[in-house]
Amino acid sequence: MSTLYEASRIEWAEREELAERMIPLIGRLYRQHGIVPSILGRRLINCSPLEILKAHRFTRKVGDQVLDPVKTLAVLEALERLAPGPASLDIARLVTEFAKVGASYGGRELEQFLRSELAEVVAAEPATPTDVVLYGFGRIGRLVARLLIAHQGSGDGLRLRAVVVRRGSDDDLLKRAELLKRDSVHGPFQGTVEVDEEANTIRANGTLIQVIYANDPAKIDYTEYGIHNAIVVDNTGRWRDEEGLEQHLRATGVSRVLLTAPGKGDIKNIVFGVNSDEIADTDRILSAASCTTNAITPVLAAIDEAYGVDRGHVETVHSFTNDQNLIDNFHQGSRRGRAASLNMVITETGAAKAVAKALPQLKGRLTGSAIRVPTPNVSLAILNLDLKRATTKDGINAFLRQTSLTAPLRQQIEYSENPDAVSTDFVGTNRAGIVDGLATIADGDENVVLYVWYDNEFGYSGQVLRVLERMAGVHPMILPVRQPVAAEGAREAVLA
Amino acid sequence: MSTLYEASRIEWAEREELAERMIPLIGRLYRQHGIVPSILGRRLINCSPLEILKAHRFTRKVGDQVLDPVKTLAVLEALERLAPGPASLDIARLVTEFAKVGASYGGRELEQFLRSELAEVVAAEPATPTDVVLYGFGRIGRLVARLLIAHQGSGDGLRLRAVVVRRGSDDDLLKRAELLKRDSVHGPFQGTVEVDEEANTIRANGTLIQVIYANDPAKIDYTEYGIHNAIVVDNTGRWRDEEGLEQHLRATGVSRVLLTAPGKGDIKNIVFGVNSDEIADTDRILSAASCTTNAITPVLAAIDEAYGVDRGHVETVHSFTNDQNLIDNFHQGSRRGRAASLNMVITETGAAKAVAKALPQLKGRLTGSAIRVPTPNVSLAILNLDLKRATTKDGINAFLRQTSLTAPLRQQIEYSENPDAVSTDFVGTNRAGIVDGLATIADGDENVVLYVWYDNEFGYSGQVLRVLERMAGVHPMILPVRQPVAAEGAREAVLA
Amino acid sequence: MSTLYEASRIEWAEREELAERMIPLIGRLYRQHGIVPSILGRRLINCSPLEILKAHRFTRKVGDQVLDPVKTLAVLEALERLAPGPASLDIARLVTEFAKVGASYGGRELEQFLRSELAEVVAAEPATPTDVVLYGFGRIGRLVARLLIAHQGSGDGLRLRAVVVRRGSDDDLLKRAELLKRDSVHGPFQGTVEVDEEANTIRANGTLIQVIYANDPAKIDYTEYGIHNAIVVDNTGRWRDEEGLEQHLRATGVSRVLLTAPGKGDIKNIVFGVNSDEIADTDRILSAASCTTNAITPVLAAIDEAYGVDRGHVETVHSFTNDQNLIDNFHQGSRRGRAASLNMVITETGAAKAVAKALPQLKGRLTGSAIRVPTPNVSLAILNLDLKRATTKDGINAFLRQTSLTAPLRQQIEYSENPDAVSTDFVGTNRAGIVDGLATIADGDENVVLYVWYDNEFGYSGQVLRVLERMAGVHPMILPVRQPVAAEGAREAVLA
Amino acid sequence: MSTLYEASRIEWAEREELAERMIPLIGRLYRQHGIVPSILGRRLINCSPLEILKAHRFTRKVGDQVLDPVKTLAVLEALERLAPGPASLDIARLVTEFAKVGASYGGRELEQFLRSELAEVVAAEPATPTDVVLYGFGRIGRLVARLLIAHQGSGDGLRLRAVVVRRGSDDDLLKRAELLKRDSVHGPFQGTVEVDEEANTIRANGTLIQVIYANDPAKIDYTEYGIHNAIVVDNTGRWRDEEGLEQHLRATGVSRVLLTAPGKGDIKNIVFGVNSDEIADTDRILSAASCTTNAITPVLAAIDEAYGVDRGHVETVHSFTNDQNLIDNFHQGSRRGRAASLNMVITETGAAKAVAKALPQLKGRLTGSAIRVPTPNVSLAILNLDLKRATTKDGINAFLRQTSLTAPLRQQIEYSENPDAVSTDFVGTNRAGIVDGLATIADGDENVVLYVWYDNEFGYSGQVLRVLERMAGVHPMILPVRQPVAAEGAREAVLA
Repeated sequence: MSTLYEASRIEWAEREELAERMIPLIGRLYRQHGIVPSILGRRLINCSPLEILKAHRFTRKVGDQVLDPVKTLAVLEALERLAPGPASLDIARLVTEFAKVGASYGGRELEQFLRSELAEVVAAEPATPTDVVLYGFGRIGRLVARLLIAHQGSGDGLRLRAVVVRRGSDDDLLKRAELLKRDSVHGPFQGTVEVDEEANTIRANGTLIQVIYANDPAKIDYTEYGIHNAIVVDNTGRWRDEEGLEQHLRATGVSRVLLTAPGKGDIKNIVFGVNSDEIADTDRILSAASCTTNAITPVLAAIDEAYGVDRGHVETVHSFTNDQNLIDNFHQGSRRGRAASLNMVITETGAAKAVAKALPQLKGRLTGSAIRVPTPNVSLAILNLDLKRATTKDGINAFLRQTSLTAPLRQQIEYSENPDAVSTDFVGTNRAGIVDGLATIADGDENVVLYVWYDNEFGYSGQVLRVLERMAGVHPMILPVRQPVAAEGAREAVLA
Repeated sequence: MSTLYEASRIEWAEREELAERMIPLIGRLYRQHGIVPSILGRRLINCSPLEILKAHRFTRKVGDQVLDPVKTLAVLEALERLAPGPASLDIARLVTEFAKVGASYGGRELEQFLRSELAEVVAAEPATPTDVVLYGFGRIGRLVARLLIAHQGSGDGLRLRAVVVRRGSDDDLLKRAELLKRDSVHGPFQGTVEVDEEANTIRANGTLIQVIYANDPAKIDYTEYGIHNAIVVDNTGRWRDEEGLEQHLRATGVSRVLLTAPGKGDIKNIVFGVNSDEIADTDRILSAASCTTNAITPVLAAIDEAYGVDRGHVETVHSFTNDQNLIDNFHQGSRRGRAASLNMVITETGAAKAVAKALPQLKGRLTGSAIRVPTPNVSLAILNLDLKRATTKDGINAFLRQTSLTAPLRQQIEYSENPDAVSTDFVGTNRAGIVDGLATIADGDENVVLYVWYDNEFGYSGQVLRVLERMAGVHPMILPVRQPVAAEGAREAVLA
Repeated sequence: MSTLYEASRIEWAEREELAERMIPLIGRLYRQHGIVPSILGRRLINCSPLEILKAHRFTRKVGDQVLDPVKTLAVLEALERLAPGPASLDIARLVTEFAKVGASYGGRELEQFLRSELAEVVAAEPATPTDVVLYGFGRIGRLVARLLIAHQGSGDGLRLRAVVVRRGSDDDLLKRAELLKRDSVHGPFQGTVEVDEEANTIRANGTLIQVIYANDPAKIDYTEYGIHNAIVVDNTGRWRDEEGLEQHLRATGVSRVLLTAPGKGDIKNIVFGVNSDEIADTDRILSAASCTTNAITPVLAAIDEAYGVDRGHVETVHSFTNDQNLIDNFHQGSRRGRAASLNMVITETGAAKAVAKALPQLKGRLTGSAIRVPTPNVSLAILNLDLKRATTKDGINAFLRQTSLTAPLRQQIEYSENPDAVSTDFVGTNRAGIVDGLATIADGDENVVLYVWYDNEFGYSGQVLRVLERMAGVHPMILPVRQPVAAEGAREAVLA
Repeated sequence: MSTLYEASRIEWAEREELAERMIPLIGRLYRQHGIVPSILGRRLINCSPLEILKAHRFTRKVGDQVLDPVKTLAVLEALERLAPGPASLDIARLVTEFAKVGASYGGRELEQFLRSELAEVVAAEPATPTDVVLYGFGRIGRLVARLLIAHQGSGDGLRLRAVVVRRGSDDDLLKRAELLKRDSVHGPFQGTVEVDEEANTIRANGTLIQVIYANDPAKIDYTEYGIHNAIVVDNTGRWRDEEGLEQHLRATGVSRVLLTAPGKGDIKNIVFGVNSDEIADTDRILSAASCTTNAITPVLAAIDEAYGVDRGHVETVHSFTNDQNLIDNFHQGSRRGRAASLNMVITETGAAKAVAKALPQLKGRLTGSAIRVPTPNVSLAILNLDLKRATTKDGINAFLRQTSLTAPLRQQIEYSENPDAVSTDFVGTNRAGIVDGLATIADGDENVVLYVWYDNEFGYSGQVLRVLERMAGVHPMILPVRQPVAAEGAREAVLA
């Protein structure tokens, strides 16, 4: 028995060593070539050895064996030799594809295979860096900052150059840095944060961020700080229409604005993955819609394409937000003035209606409401849908699971079948929504109820980042190319 | 201006004096005649003067003027002269009816009117008292105890005679009394609690309760304590089927059993007001169903009768219960082992399915699920229904509002239109469910979404009490007789 | 056994009837004569019959028998015949005193006894009413409003005439009324609240309150609303020094200002019962100090007088307040920006130092700190004291218990010995602090640790009300006169 | 300006690359030689590159410059060449010491220096592995499991071989694995967890753990599973005395028992770092004392040695634990039955008294109490001390800071000066207690108040692990050797 114990330990030690050897390779590929290796959507950048092995194990979910780290290491080594341009590469799928061509890891076959698979990026030019300014530094502002810092990579993509706030106190700069460093919900900042009070800068993992104190967005001259053609990400929620947001464009050094809240009027509300192709170079002001809209729209888009959505109701059980009060007090909105940590609070939400801005075919088909409850983060959207085609629990779950693994919406939709999963388990998930397959209700007819978890802070911030990358033209090509997934009935129809 | 202030104060002082004068009258009517005066469902027993005036103001909700306390006092005085038998009397509706006959409060007309209205109870005999034993003294057991104590009245109804528990410590008796006296959610006990350690009794507002320590229900001889033909209310949840619950019947002194949880097998699950007429004298074991089933079934019954329910989904946002864990630990059920105060927890619930036990026509038409959230009490059921007839928000709200005021299900359904209402506001509501009209979603077609609050502890306990009263034959006749309410379309049809 | 049950029930019914009969009497005594009957500090005004009986039972705590309601009724009847002027009368102590003179309740002896006991108030003139304006309507403002409304009585005391706020929304008036009507922590308003949108008034239990919208305190003309020589209670915390608070005095119709927060500079900080005798007619601006200072100073004053306080440290475990953030965000103060409902938060507090403003002899002897924790109300002050005289747990507890019952600080200090008491049990306590005797640590030497609960919202509001009454000269004379209590050692010394 | 941004980014990229290169080295040193490299107590095992750089920055706290990763890499490379035996090596201090001898990193000087510094371990034999069984798998059991798995290293130390629980359900094994994998407070397991239902094993990061179902500890034959001479860690709290715990010794394959709760009678209560030298080879049963005792005793020991502790009171503001109830219900202990998530709950604690078991000189000098509050983890001990020597805030803080960095109690005591630190920031701290220097109260006399945070789950589990290592003789030698720190006055005295 002890032999089993020992054998297990030794086998694991070998895997650990492989994972450790990957790390310098991953770092170089990322910084020098803009390559983002991942395993079924799990980014390997800056992982610990155990995190890398955990990602390998995740491949069991596609019905495959656990991905062999020997193969991963071989792929990474071959990639370094290949020296391609920027791309997001799914190692697990590359290994699967490579297996199909029956090739061995010994000779030069792997490199040839990769050269062919990555043809489009082998000779790609590095992107032109784009300056980003965060206007407002609340919950979303700080998480977008964390993401931008974690994605600075080769420096050829988005460059977080400045944060603009109103000065709140004499030690404002230190306090902003503290808020970046530690978070009651998301934990400590991964890395180092330094403050230069003379220069009014925060340096986080080498990203040098100018803190600018201002009350009027239009009067800022960003070029003073060497910032040019910047995208301003407005996290204040103070302005939601073109008139208000145009103030940012009147500043010197700004070319575009992204609002991290639903935009009013003609502003395009982008849900990345659903209508992000609508982003045009000529758009000066865009909105990234709301967290709930981002959580539900990708799932609705996938379901609508495969099954057709006739109508539906979206009920969101939502964590409280800083918009509510700690204890009962005046609030302009209904019910939201009542103590957030003590109550269930019914709130109106435009999230269901806003789906139609990204998915026009659902216009008028969805109703929605939300219940705020005393948790600080992670929410649950309950999609009660009348479909055009009947389905079963197994059928629609299989469809959603596959969608989460290989479909174009893979970055937006995750799928979970964990019998003990609860909301805190989803803190830090960077996908827009996670379908809880065990909770799905469907019984052979056209009615389904789907349960979609989402980290309403971090998952949304991930979507904001993707919109920013697309605006800046630096959203990496994702290889191998993802494929649409058919609904179970349709698939059988196709096969028949 | 000061004159207005003074006039307002003086007018109020007059009202206060009237309310104060009612109190001895109300007490005598209750204790000597078993009369329970109420105003649109608000019991006046043991109210403070301000609570009485608050109940008067509630009549504005029926579109009437505020009920004049002069009239209430006159009715109470006339009632005392009339000396009728036990009944639950809605003073507001009596006043309204009396107004229709155009009579004056000066002469003997009121007494004649009341004699006629109350004909059925004028000469009614007092009921025979029934002994009640609470087996288990957890959240529901203690609240049912509070209700039984508050309803002891003339002593001719239910008599809470004993509580049976396992001895938990040397000072068990004191601890049980403490748990009755103070409650973190429902506040202090209204009245006095005395402990007699020698006799093992708790005396609460004069109700002398024997505390019996036992591990085996079948071995208890209740007649030792002068208890005969008792109804045992099983609050332990340990046994849910006939085999288990029959153990109580094998004890000496027990005639019937009421389970305060959903019963299995052939046990009738009674939702008071919906299928309480099924209670037969020959039933030895009954169940009062679950809190959620009690909250939603009356609303579903009313809606089904008026509009027809084709199908629906019930999502419950539910407070945590002691069945969950405080911090993550082992639990037999899925997800329920995870920290209750930190998480949203998806739980399976049979509540929607169980509706069919009381409303057979809905069998197979409802699905349901629940999300446990970090509040300690009050839950919200969201009824997403496909009706057979189209309706509007105003239409269905008007129907539900009227149902809550004058329909036979008035004791089960309350209706609220408060723009700032949140869950804690409903702590202590003794109706099974409260429709939040402002949240209703309906837009002229057959789909509606209804939001039903419920105090999952106290509202349910009220329903348990009503089942007990019916089992004991002491549920008071409610006068004036309540009338069914028609749906808005149907009503117009009738009027046309 | 059933006989015992029945006997208990009947005995209780008799008590209930007596309590019910008291209620019209109590109302008349209060409204017509300004008499506030109480039982060991429990006000009987607007109680339900059960609350009255509960208060009677409380007398067991003084080692007496339960106060006989027959005697209370007799005293109340005699009082009505006596028709005295305004006073706060402790019925329990009057009965005890009357017993000492061995008199019977049958003849005229009681009336004679009362005439002598109440000599000072028998012919007292009614007070002159004083107008009160609440400036700010947050947690404290609303609770002070509830108290002023409950104390309007004969209209000869404090008259809540207006509330001043900034207009927050179009439906501001309705929202303010809602916040008065329901409270997540303190429950619903006891009584009725009506809104007159044309006149901008809220009428609560007959008290007609003008809602005034203003941004600048100095520009308000209160006389427009018939308000003269008003005391303005500033609940905003915006101004803490004379310069800022003098703005209120520049308004028309204002004579004095009371700040419900610690005042800066030379402003007197009044802790009622401790230094309230310092209130002079010439004081234009006063402060009622902070909730924590009010909770601890009376206990410290009592202990210092009896035992001498050499030095000490006060650690407060404090509920969160609206000054903190719901989730991490910028805050000027240290640590207070971090999520209040998720964290223990160390906060600096001047409460211990501020004790010296009311008790100068303790200057420099106390240190203090506070830990904010995730409860919404009720706090716990831990007084770690080095005394000048040694004591024991029993000794100091006996002293504090007696102080809470009969000493001049009886309105400020309560004493509890409940083995299962926790913080929510103290919600709604109107004394400044409640000593938890079971937690006291003392072992025969000079070191003691005392645990003092306080409802940091309601207990403080009660103290604010008392300061207001004293400022207006309408604080009722309290009879029988309260007596200082000696420390256990001192008492023995005196007896020896 | 952009140049600064770019320069910063490039400089950081170089550091990242160095950190990445360390990782395979660190892994090999750990697994092949039992070397645990750390930076001022921050273990580098299984860190991500950013975590390694964060640890480097921490060196600023000792007044040094940020540790140069070039030097760290050089030290790690030299160590690999040196191939020493097991030890815990503080790289930061080695670099500091090396700087003192003025040596360069270029030649062989570093290796010579290390050979001399590590003389004691250069030729050390690997330890003999010791089998460990976790009896009970609650909060502490699972965290100790996580630590044992993270410390399996070369396999020559502690080997987690089995977990013993009562079978709770048919899917018990899966549920236990789930509870290990995800935690509402401590987050997901770092690595992979596999379940073998046939063999009843859980494999976590290669550690193969037998799950044994048993109700009677004495009847288990661990040798059936290849487990010999095991240390059983009892996490159940069911037995606290020798008689109860001896049952484990009657099982086959067990040699010693460690209780993770305070032991009764003659059982030694070990607080690692304070009285761990008392652990004798002949001890069959030991206790690791309580979490609070572990948090405060090291600080008290350090203070007592430097300043002398005359007397004191320890007040603990403590997170709730699973021992309490979620909502009010029966509990044997006082107050602990009341709803944990809604209340402050005063609880008696033996933690202060138990200090004397590890520090006999403090016997009778400390009192203590605890307030449970609604946070799920991390507690705060407030030490209110009368010292024998006067001190100041700066003085005692400097002493504690230095103690946390270089003194023998460095593993037990951490020191923090963060102006925005709150309780959640300390989740996952593996030291027994963290002094919050900014909260310290001291003013030149003998009275001080110290605030000590502790992760009452994880910090304690770290101490349990250290006791286990010592029992097994595998606690690594810590180099460079740590030095006692003198109090500020004493130090000056010595220097004078």
